[in-house]
Amino acid sequence: MRVDGRANDELRKITFTRQYTKYAKGSVLVEFGDTKVLVCATCENTTPKWMPKEDATGWITAEYSLLPTSTSIRCQRERTKLSGRTQEIQRLIGRSLRAVVDLEKMGERTVTIDADVIQADGGTRVAAICGAYLALKDLFDSMTESGELEENPIIEPLGAISVGILNGEVLVDLCYSEDSTTDVDSNIVLTSRGKIIEIQGTAEGEAFDKEQFDEMFNLAKQSIDKIISMY
Amino acid sequence: MRVDGRANDELRKITFTRQYTKYAKGSVLVEFGDTKVLVCATCENTTPKWMPKEDATGWITAEYSLLPTSTSIRCQRERTKLSGRTQEIQRLIGRSLRAVVDLEKMGERTVTIDADVIQADGGTRVAAICGAYLALKDLFDSMTESGELEENPIIEPLGAISVGILNGEVLVDLCYSEDSTTDVDSNIVLTSRGKIIEIQGTAEGEAFDKEQFDEMFNLAKQSIDKIISMY
Amino acid sequence: MRVDGRANDELRKITFTRQYTKYAKGSVLVEFGDTKVLVCATCENTTPKWMPKEDATGWITAEYSLLPTSTSIRCQRERTKLSGRTQEIQRLIGRSLRAVVDLEKMGERTVTIDADVIQADGGTRVAAICGAYLALKDLFDSMTESGELEENPIIEPLGAISVGILNGEVLVDLCYSEDSTTDVDSNIVLTSRGKIIEIQGTAEGEAFDKEQFDEMFNLAKQSIDKIISMY
Amino acid sequence: MRVDGRANDELRKITFTRQYTKYAKGSVLVEFGDTKVLVCATCENTTPKWMPKEDATGWITAEYSLLPTSTSIRCQRERTKLSGRTQEIQRLIGRSLRAVVDLEKMGERTVTIDADVIQADGGTRVAAICGAYLALKDLFDSMTESGELEENPIIEPLGAISVGILNGEVLVDLCYSEDSTTDVDSNIVLTSRGKIIEIQGTAEGEAFDKEQFDEMFNLAKQSIDKIISMY
Amino acid sequence: MRVDGRANDELRKITFTRQYTKYAKGSVLVEFGDTKVLVCATCENTTPKWMPKEDATGWITAEYSLLPTSTSIRCQRERTKLSGRTQEIQRLIGRSLRAVVDLEKMGERTVTIDADVIQADGGTRVAAICGAYLALKDLFDSMTESGELEENPIIEPLGAISVGILNGEVLVDLCYSEDSTTDVDSNIVLTSRGKIIEIQGTAEGEAFDKEQFDEMFNLAKQSIDKIISMY
Amino acid sequence: MRVDGRANDELRKITFTRQYTKYAKGSVLVEFGDTKVLVCATCENTTPKWMPKEDATGWITAEYSLLPTSTSIRCQRERTKLSGRTQEIQRLIGRSLRAVVDLEKMGERTVTIDADVIQADGGTRVAAICGAYLALKDLFDSMTESGELEENPIIEPLGAISVGILNGEVLVDLCYSEDSTTDVDSNIVLTSRGKIIEIQGTAEGEAFDKEQFDEMFNLAKQSIDKIISMY
Repeated sequence: MRVDGRANDELRKITFTRQYTKYAKGSVLVEFGDTKVLVCATCENTTPKWMPKEDATGWITAEYSLLPTSTSIRCQRERTKLSGRTQEIQRLIGRSLRAVVDLEKMGERTVTIDADVIQADGGTRVAAICGAYLALKDLFDSMTESGELEENPIIEPLGAISVGILNGEVLVDLCYSEDSTTDVDSNIVLTSRGKIIEIQGTAEGEAFDKEQFDEMFNLAKQSIDKIISMY
Repeated sequence: MRVDGRANDELRKITFTRQYTKYAKGSVLVEFGDTKVLVCATCENTTPKWMPKEDATGWITAEYSLLPTSTSIRCQRERTKLSGRTQEIQRLIGRSLRAVVDLEKMGERTVTIDADVIQADGGTRVAAICGAYLALKDLFDSMTESGELEENPIIEPLGAISVGILNGEVLVDLCYSEDSTTDVDSNIVLTSRGKIIEIQGTAEGEAFDKEQFDEMFNLAKQSIDKIISMY
Repeated sequence: MRVDGRANDELRKITFTRQYTKYAKGSVLVEFGDTKVLVCATCENTTPKWMPKEDATGWITAEYSLLPTSTSIRCQRERTKLSGRTQEIQRLIGRSLRAVVDLEKMGERTVTIDADVIQADGGTRVAAICGAYLALKDLFDSMTESGELEENPIIEPLGAISVGILNGEVLVDLCYSEDSTTDVDSNIVLTSRGKIIEIQGTAEGEAFDKEQFDEMFNLAKQSIDKIISMY
Repeated sequence: MRVDGRANDELRKITFTRQYTKYAKGSVLVEFGDTKVLVCATCENTTPKWMPKEDATGWITAEYSLLPTSTSIRCQRERTKLSGRTQEIQRLIGRSLRAVVDLEKMGERTVTIDADVIQADGGTRVAAICGAYLALKDLFDSMTESGELEENPIIEPLGAISVGILNGEVLVDLCYSEDSTTDVDSNIVLTSRGKIIEIQGTAEGEAFDKEQFDEMFNLAKQSIDKIISMY
Repeated sequence: MRVDGRANDELRKITFTRQYTKYAKGSVLVEFGDTKVLVCATCENTTPKWMPKEDATGWITAEYSLLPTSTSIRCQRERTKLSGRTQEIQRLIGRSLRAVVDLEKMGERTVTIDADVIQADGGTRVAAICGAYLALKDLFDSMTESGELEENPIIEPLGAISVGILNGEVLVDLCYSEDSTTDVDSNIVLTSRGKIIEIQGTAEGEAFDKEQFDEMFNLAKQSIDKIISMY
Repeated sequence: MRVDGRANDELRKITFTRQYTKYAKGSVLVEFGDTKVLVCATCENTTPKWMPKEDATGWITAEYSLLPTSTSIRCQRERTKLSGRTQEIQRLIGRSLRAVVDLEKMGERTVTIDADVIQADGGTRVAAICGAYLALKDLFDSMTESGELEENPIIEPLGAISVGILNGEVLVDLCYSEDSTTDVDSNIVLTSRGKIIEIQGTAEGEAFDKEQFDEMFNLAKQSIDKIISMY
C-alpha cells in the first residue's frame, strides 16, 4: 500500500478554485492533495522581441516559482539567477499550452502564465499545467465576452499527471515522499482526445523497460481523463 | 467620504489566519481588506556571516516579494536584482521585529521572515509587519514547547499601520487608490505600550506641518491598539 | 559631555566649497566635521523610461557611493549590486530634492545628483542632502543664466540633519562614534519655512517615547535653520 | 525522400575521433554528418557542495556550449547567464551518464563532461551524449590503468539518438533543416541492453498518437544498437 | 637549449587551415605548435550602439575564449563575467585589426572575430591575431566576390608574435612552460612593412634594459616577416 | 605649440598631497594639471584565494574608478560590471607596483591600492601609478614604524608617464584634448635606475616606426626622472 493509503491508480483529492485573486482575469488555485499552486494568466498587447514582426502571432510564456516556505525545508528565492529545474518547468508549461491554442487567432498578444507554488508535496509541474489551462480558458473567455477576442482560441482541453515506478509498482500522482524515492519518474501531458503533447520519462535509479513505460502511459491516460472531467 | 465609504479613522476588515501552510512553524495569512500577505517564519541554527563569532546572538531577517499578479497591472518578478523599494521594506520588517525580541535569549539562530504578497491593495508593508509578529510568536511558541528554547524571547507585541494626508484630511489604513494620490504618506510601528519602534513620514507632494504629523501619530497609535487586540 | 567636546545641541564645523570640480555645473564639497562628501549635479535632456511621454515633467534622481577608503575599515566597492543602505539613501536624496522643485518648470530634463563620500564620520546622508541642494541651485542658476531655463525652478531651500538619543540625552549631528552606539537614530529634512519633507526615526535599541521624538524634532528644526543660513 | 537523400531509417555518417586534444584524459570529437561536437571528460578529487559529506559518492556533471560560429547565423556567447535550452541539455547529459555508472565505485570524485559544439547541424545533444560516454570510458580506463581506480565503474554502454515526425513520416537522426520543420521531436537514450534511460517527446505542432510514439521508439532502438556497435 | 629543442630565434611549426568550418565566411584553424585556435570572422549590417549615426563607419570587434579543456588543468567557463585577461586580449585583437583596415570602405557593418582556443600551449593571443587577419581577409574576399563590397578594405597584412627573456636569453614564440617562467614577456604586432601597431613589454620578475627590449623587437620583426610569408 | 602652451617635452604642474584622508595609512592626492586622482593604500592580513597556502607571499592589487562627474560628460558608474578599460588599468597598476616590492618581505598580507579619479584630463593611469607608489611607501613606512614590518619592502622607486605622437611631433604628458586626437599613445613605467617595468605603445591611427618609438622612450625616461625627484 502507498504511504498515504491510496491505491496505485488513485489520484489525490484534486480541486480547482477559480477567480482566486481579483486582478488577473484568469486566476486559479489548484490543489493536488497538499500541493497548492496559484496559477494566473494575464495578457499584454505585445509580442516577444525574438518574433519577426512580419510573421507575428500570439504567444504564451510561463514563469514558475516556489515560495521559500512551500517546501519542507525552506528553499532559497531565485533572486539572481534561475535554476535549471525552474527553467525546464517554465518551458514545459509554455510549450504544453501553446500546443492547444490557435496562436493566429490570439492576435498579436502575449499571455503570461504565473505559477506560484504555495505548498509543494510532489507534482507541482503537472498541477501547474492543469491550472494554467483553466486560467487561460478563463482569461480567453473574459476577453471574448468583452469583445477583445472574436472567439476563444483554445482548440482542445489538456491535462497532465505524474506517473512513476517504485519497487516495481507503477503509481500515479506521486506525493513528495514517493517522488523522492522513486526509480522512474515520468510526466505526461495529453489532450482530451488522448493525443500526446509531451512525454518525459527518466530513470532516476535503474533503467526501465518499454513495457513498463507503456503501463505508465496507460495509467496516465485514464487519470488525465478523470482530471479533465473535473474542469 | 473615503473611496470605500470608511470614516477617516476607520480600519479595513483585518484578519489573521494562523497555521496557513503546513511546513513553516509560523505561518499567517494577513488580510487588511483586499490586501493579502502570506507571512512565514522559519529558523536555522546558524548566525549571519557578518556577525563576529565571539559576540554571536540570535538574528531576524526578512524577505519581501510581490507575486507578479498581486498588483492591478502585472509586475515583473525580481529575478536578477532587487528594487530599492523591496530592500527598504525588507530592512524595515527585520529591524521592527528585532526591536521586540531579546536576541540573546534566541541563542545562535537566524529566523527568516518571508512575506509574500498575494494581493496588493495598499499597506502591504504594515500588514506584513503585523503578520510577521504573529508568525514569529507562533514559531517561538512551537520551539518553546518542543524544548528548543527555554522561553519565548519576545519582549512585547508590536503593531504597524499606515496613515496619510489626502486633501487636508488625516486618514488611516490607506487602500491603494488613496495611497497613490496622497499628499503625505507615513508608516508607524509601535509597541503595545505605545513606544515608538519606527516612524516614517514623507511628503509626496507638498511639505507638511508638525501639527499634522502629530495628528497622524495619534491616529496611528489608537489604530495599532485595535490591531494588537485582535492578535 | 560628548566624545568631541560639543554641547548636545552643537553642530560640527560645517563648510560648503562650491565649484569644487570643473566639469559639473553644480559641484560642492560638503564638510560636516570630518565627514566630507563631494556632491555634483548634472543635467540631461531626457526623461526617465518609466515616465509616460504624455505627462512628462522634469525629474531628479541620485546616486550615492562610499569611496572604499572613506570608512575607518576599508569597505567594498558596490560593483555588482547595491546594498539596501545605498538604495535607501539614494531614494531619500532624490525624494527630498523633488519636494522643493517645480518639476513642470524644469522641462523634460533629468538631473542626476552624484554624492560621493570622500571621508565618512557620521551623517553622510544629511550632509549629502544639504550639498545636493546647493549643487542643484548652482546648476539651475547656471542654466538660467545661459537661457536654458527661464527661471530657477527651486521653490524653497531645504536642510537636513541627524538627531539621536544616547544614554537618554538628545544629541544633534552625530559623529560616527556616537552614531554607532546611539539608542535612537533619526534623520529629518525640513524646508526653510519649517515644513516637513521627510521624517525618519528608528529605535536601534530600546523603543522611545513620543515626547523624546518631539524633543529631537525641535532640535533638528533649530539646527536646520542654522545650516540654511550658511548657504 | 529526405533533404539529404537518406532513407527514413538511415543514420548520417557517424565518427568518433578519440584522444582529440592532449590535456583531458577523455577527449572525443564526435561527428554526426556536419554536426561536430568536442566532448572532454576531466576528473577532480572533490564532491559537489550540495552532497552531504556522510553519504558522499562520485558525481558526474556536464557543461554544454555552442561556439558562436557553430550555427548558420552567429549566435551569442552565454557570458552572463545560461539559456533554458543550455541548462536542459546539460542536465540531460549528466543524468544520462550517471544512470550507467556505479557512483559508489567512482569514489569521492567529480567528473565534468565538457561538450563544445564546433558545428551544429541538428542532433547536438544526442551526439554529445554518445561522445560523453566514450570520453568517460577513456577517462576511467586511464584512471584504472594508473591505479587511481580499481576498476572502471561503468556498468553498461549507452547510446542516444533523435527521432521525429515530418509530414507523417517517422525519421531518424534529423539534420537541422529537418529538425526545424518537424511536427514531433523526440530524443531517446537507451542502454546497450535496450533499457530506457531517458525518453522525451514533444509535439512542436500537432499532438501525436501513442502508435506513432511506439514507431519512433522502435526506430530509435535499432539506431542506438548501430551506434553502440561503432564504439 | 630550449625545452622543446628549438634555437632561441626559431618559431614552432605554424599552420593555417582555412575554411575550417562551414557557416562562417572566414574560418581558420591556427596552429603554433600545440597551440590551436579556431578563428572565425562574421559580418552584420549594423554598427555599434556607441557609434554616432552621423559618423558611422565599419567596425571590427573580437571575442576570445578558452575551451575549459584547452588548458593543462581544466579552467572555468566565463559564464557570468569576463576576466581582465580575456578583456585585454579581446581589445588587443580588435584594435590590431582595425589598424590595417580602411573602416570607411567597410561601410556600415560590424565584423566580429571569434577566437576560441581548442588547445593552449603559450602564445594564444598572437596566434589569434594572425588567424584573425586571415579569417578577415577570407571574409572580405568572399564579400567582394559576391558584390557586397566593391573592394577588399584591408590596407596591409599584419603579423604578431611573442618574445621574452628567460635567464638572460632572448627567445621567440614561447611555449607555455617557457612563458610561465619567463622574466620578461612581450607581444608585438607589426605590419608587413615593419611598422608598429602594438608593442607591449612587461617585467614579470626583474625590470629590464632598453637594449634588451631592442633585441626582442628585432627578433619579433624577423619572425613576423616569416609568418606573413606563410599566409 | 601645444593646446595649453607647453613645449613638447614639458610636464604639466605635478603635485602630490600626502595624508589627504584620515583613515588609510597611505593616502595621496595626485594632480597632473587638471587631472586629480585620490590614491589610498590599505593592508589586510590575508592572502588572495588563488595563492597556494604553502607558497604564500605578500600581494598587491588595485582598484580604479572614475567618479561619474570626473569626465567632461558624466560617465556611468560601473555598478554591475567593469569595462575592459577599467580592468586593464587595474591590472597595470598592480603589476607595476609588484615589480618594485619584495613580496616575501611583505609577509602574508594583501595591500589594496584604491585609485579614484576626482577629475580626468588625460593621464589618469600614469598619475595613479605615481600616486600609488607614494601611498604604498607611506603605508609601509607607517607599518615599519609601528613594528608590523621589520623594514620597508620597497626595492626602488618607480615613475610613469604618457607619451604620444600628434601630427608627427612627440609629446609628453598628454592632456585630454591631445590624448583624444593623438596618432600614437604610449604609457611607460620605469624604475629610478631607468629599467623598464612596463612599456605599451598603440597606433590609434597609422602604424609608426621604431625610431619614433625610441624617441618617445627617451622623452619618457627624462620625464620620469623629474617626477621621481618630486617625491
